[in-house]
Amino acid sequence: MAQRNHEGETAGDLLGDYLRNQAMRFLRGLRLHECSGADAAEASDASEVMRGASRRISGALLTFRPVTDPPWADGLRTELIWVSGVLADEHAYASRLARLLEALHRLSGSAAPQIPAARGAAGPRGGLALGAARAAALLDRQLTLARTRAHSATLQAFGSARFHAVADAVAVLASEVQVDPVAARGDVHQVLVPLASVAESRLAEAVCRLPEPSRIHDEAQDAFWHTVRRLLRTHRYALEVLGEDVTRLATAGEALDRHRDAAEAASASALAARTPRIAPATAYALGVLHADQRHEVEAARLAFQHVWQRSAVRT
Amino acid sequence: MAQRNHEGETAGDLLGDYLRNQAMRFLRGLRLHECSGADAAEASDASEVMRGASRRISGALLTFRPVTDPPWADGLRTELIWVSGVLADEHAYASRLARLLEALHRLSGSAAPQIPAARGAAGPRGGLALGAARAAALLDRQLTLARTRAHSATLQAFGSARFHAVADAVAVLASEVQVDPVAARGDVHQVLVPLASVAESRLAEAVCRLPEPSRIHDEAQDAFWHTVRRLLRTHRYALEVLGEDVTRLATAGEALDRHRDAAEAASASALAARTPRIAPATAYALGVLHADQRHEVEAARLAFQHVWQRSAVRT
Repeated sequence: MAQRNHEGETAGDLLGDYLRNQAMRFLRGLRLHECSGADAAEASDASEVMRGASRRISGALLTFRPVTDPPWADGLRTELIWVSGVLADEHAYASRLARLLEALHRLSGSAAPQIPAARGAAGPRGGLALGAARAAALLDRQLTLARTRAHSATLQAFGSARFHAVADAVAVLASEVQVDPVAARGDVHQVLVPLASVAESRLAEAVCRLPEPSRIHDEAQDAFWHTVRRLLRTHRYALEVLGEDVTRLATAGEALDRHRDAAEAASASALAARTPRIAPATAYALGVLHADQRHEVEAARLAFQHVWQRSAVRT
Repeated sequence: MAQRNHEGETAGDLLGDYLRNQAMRFLRGLRLHECSGADAAEASDASEVMRGASRRISGALLTFRPVTDPPWADGLRTELIWVSGVLADEHAYASRLARLLEALHRLSGSAAPQIPAARGAAGPRGGLALGAARAAALLDRQLTLARTRAHSATLQAFGSARFHAVADAVAVLASEVQVDPVAARGDVHQVLVPLASVAESRLAEAVCRLPEPSRIHDEAQDAFWHTVRRLLRTHRYALEVLGEDVTRLATAGEALDRHRDAAEAASASALAARTPRIAPATAYALGVLHADQRHEVEAARLAFQHVWQRSAVRT
């Protein structure tokens, strides 16, 4: 699997370098976040840096667990998953709202003048445009509220003893990685490459278990793709440790990110449609929006399959 | 273009045979319709035979107009278009309702148990299933009413002097086709093949003018595809006169039929959503249904393009 030449490097060197780099990245993100103050865009960038580093550290700790001190690795991984979960929520609500408003704009903006509803006997009052505007206002209200709550939760988490302990642990990681002394002295090809292969096999198996991407409204299938998304990330970070090219995995991962985003946007639209006392035109626009996002789910699945088949994965 | 050997046949022979056969088919359909009484399925079959024959006769009269007596051909064609229009309405409402109910069943049946709306905080009351059932009842009411009206209009048309005149004209056509004496004596390859080529060129030009099938919710684009559907039929019937294989044209035509059906089903769903005082859940289901049918429109466009590109049309 490995294509780079790792002669003279031990498993501990390579994994240690990667973990230290990601730990320093996490700390940079944290400093940026602390300095961002009221600048929401800067805080969002900082949060993304911290999430990326958290995911990479926990991914590497999972795949290469036998090379580390396992109890330490498991503990740190649990805490980093918590941190990136907290950070992800606020970002998710903001980007979900942006995605839904963009879709509503597309659906009503281009279709409104020609839509039969706007030409019909009842005049323009029944067109998608009116319902879309109301649906946009409703989603804006609901998702902004959720984002505000997530923001408060993030601030609360940042002030907690638990978070300070994670930050301390990452600061230690930036200078010293706790490894298994025997495994860490081993050859990269003998130790890390086989462990990375396990991550790759898990991914390949999950891809094989994917249902045919045909019944797009069957939301029970989404979970299969979310699993592949998670395993693909783990595999990707393992390859990053080995210094491999991950371009195609990143492209496949983007399709799965879109899949997740569209699936959650569709759910948000369905949820908004259950708001009591909304107008039928609003509910109608939310129905159109739901179906539109489910079709984005479908498109993302096809895009993933396309990239995946082209990438000639070695199982 | 023509692949069959028409040696020894005149243009008048070939066109006359086709028109006489279709006229006899029309009369068989008419007899079947008169005998069908209260049997709706039999009446529907009879109606389809009559519509198929009407379309073929008027298509052949249009393409090969210079071989016929043009004033007679134009008059008969106008009347046959009227007949097939009357017959098509009732069928269209029935099949539109069936298509919409099938789609609602698919959308709610498979998704309902897993749909977030049914799992969410508000419990099962907000799921798609309830709205879908109400939307189905609403569409059933509206389209059954429209079909009943179309049925009455058909019965009224069948009893009219205008219809009797058409039936008489077709009965005459079954034994004698009014042709241009000079053109009809001409060679098939010299007379009919060039005229069929004109129909083919018109179709090819209309296909070239088709917009990119990307903005599925832009319903103003539908008309381009409906034009292609009409020209494809005319071209197909011209090839039938020449005894050519029309399998691929028929397949392409089926995709355009699906396109038309889905576009009209989407409009019916949008129209139903403007019914006063409907519940938001009903409007939501109609929105999902509308978007679903617009995606069927998109799928039909892609299916058409696929068949069309494979069929390596000679322009």
